[in-house]
Amino acid sequence: MNHTLELLLNHSSVRDFKETTINRNIINIIIKTAQMAPTSSHYQAYTIIGVEDVMKKHLLSDIAGGQSWVKEAPLVLLFCGDLYRANKYYRNIDSKVLSNTELYTVATTDASLAAQNAFIAAKSLGLDGVFVGGIRNNVELVSKEFKLPDLVFPLFLLCLGFSKDEIKTKIKPRLPQAVIHKSNFYNSQNDDELIKLYDMKVKEYYKDRTSGKIKDKWTERCGKSLMEKTRYEVGKFFRSIELFKS
Amino acid sequence: MNHTLELLLNHSSVRDFKETTINRNIINIIIKTAQMAPTSSHYQAYTIIGVEDVMKKHLLSDIAGGQSWVKEAPLVLLFCGDLYRANKYYRNIDSKVLSNTELYTVATTDASLAAQNAFIAAKSLGLDGVFVGGIRNNVELVSKEFKLPDLVFPLFLLCLGFSKDEIKTKIKPRLPQAVIHKSNFYNSQNDDELIKLYDMKVKEYYKDRTSGKIKDKWTERCGKSLMEKTRYEVGKFFRSIELFKS
Repeated sequence: MNHTLELLLNHSSVRDFKETTINRNIINIIIKTAQMAPTSSHYQAYTIIGVEDVMKKHLLSDIAGGQSWVKEAPLVLLFCGDLYRANKYYRNIDSKVLSNTELYTVATTDASLAAQNAFIAAKSLGLDGVFVGGIRNNVELVSKEFKLPDLVFPLFLLCLGFSKDEIKTKIKPRLPQAVIHKSNFYNSQNDDELIKLYDMKVKEYYKDRTSGKIKDKWTERCGKSLMEKTRYEVGKFFRSIELFKS
Repeated sequence: MNHTLELLLNHSSVRDFKETTINRNIINIIIKTAQMAPTSSHYQAYTIIGVEDVMKKHLLSDIAGGQSWVKEAPLVLLFCGDLYRANKYYRNIDSKVLSNTELYTVATTDASLAAQNAFIAAKSLGLDGVFVGGIRNNVELVSKEFKLPDLVFPLFLLCLGFSKDEIKTKIKPRLPQAVIHKSNFYNSQNDDELIKLYDMKVKEYYKDRTSGKIKDKWTERCGKSLMEKTRYEVGKFFRSIELFKS
């Protein structure tokens, strides 16, 4: 077991941060590491916006449904898919191409790989944090507020800082490996049974973490969450800025 | 500079592999690490299919336009976005929700964060590799071949193995940090100039790597690549399996 594996295998989200500011050198290393992630055809189809302005942090926290850590994290990075640069700089292209699903997939993947690199870099430097997708509750307002040009779209925040808690949160159990990892084809014949067992495991985890207040199974919790966060506006707004119309 | 940062900052893709097979324990650690990546609302909306069957490797290599490393890599993992499990197991949901853009974004992001974790875990264990998005040249055939149920969609491969080359490839220069990293809003006023300089840097890189055969600037190379890989079929097929219709 090497240090990198240890770091990756012990991941849990952290939402309570010390007020300690993160110095410029550290931020530069985090961004540099993000940039070293693999990128489709070397497009680098993403942009990262550092959210320093206090008003903007408050706004994002509100949009995300009042997630206080968005206000409190000393380092908040907004990850966006970016096809604006492609449109403006790539030579001899038909910009109609940019509005297809393939390019949305490319930009979203590029941004996510970069973000995970940034997160791991930060963690290797003693920081902790959490991703926040809740800003997609109002992609139109986020776009306006950050002056995103057309073909740039907000995806999620990465909130970082030094953890306030001495004791690490217990790691949330993941799906049984056989459910998520198949061999040669999508064989789901044992999934029903495995997910039933996993449901009980998740229920125990929540009971333990919330002193009995929450006792949802995985399938219950995900169902509730899904129906609370339908976010039909994401598609509507993205299409209005010429994204994945085809 | 810690080991993890060193590993991340020295990334370059590797496409030539020794024939050494990867043992089962190593594969399990890689998948376990993938699963420890952050996931939106704990949905874990992805599935990883290990491609062991030689015929399937050949087929994927062909679909990707003849990328030989897909046939030759001892470990090939197919990453898919997965909303099938949501549809089948999440309680009390209206399955119409699954066909919206938001959920496509969630699944693609989940799969990408997991994949980057897998890649880093593999690299920390001495492996190397490359992502291959070329399988999206024919998502319909990939889906059929791997018996993907509706609402599961192929995204990319991660090809892994021990590198054949003693000398590491020179690292490909990334966009200037100021282009990709903005502060508080999308300020692009210096981008034109910075990208002009970057164009020359990339041209030098290609000239050097190909002994003068390729001398494309970044903006030229990306333009060509974009027009070669329009992949309008991705959107068409995904809509046919009820993905992001809204």
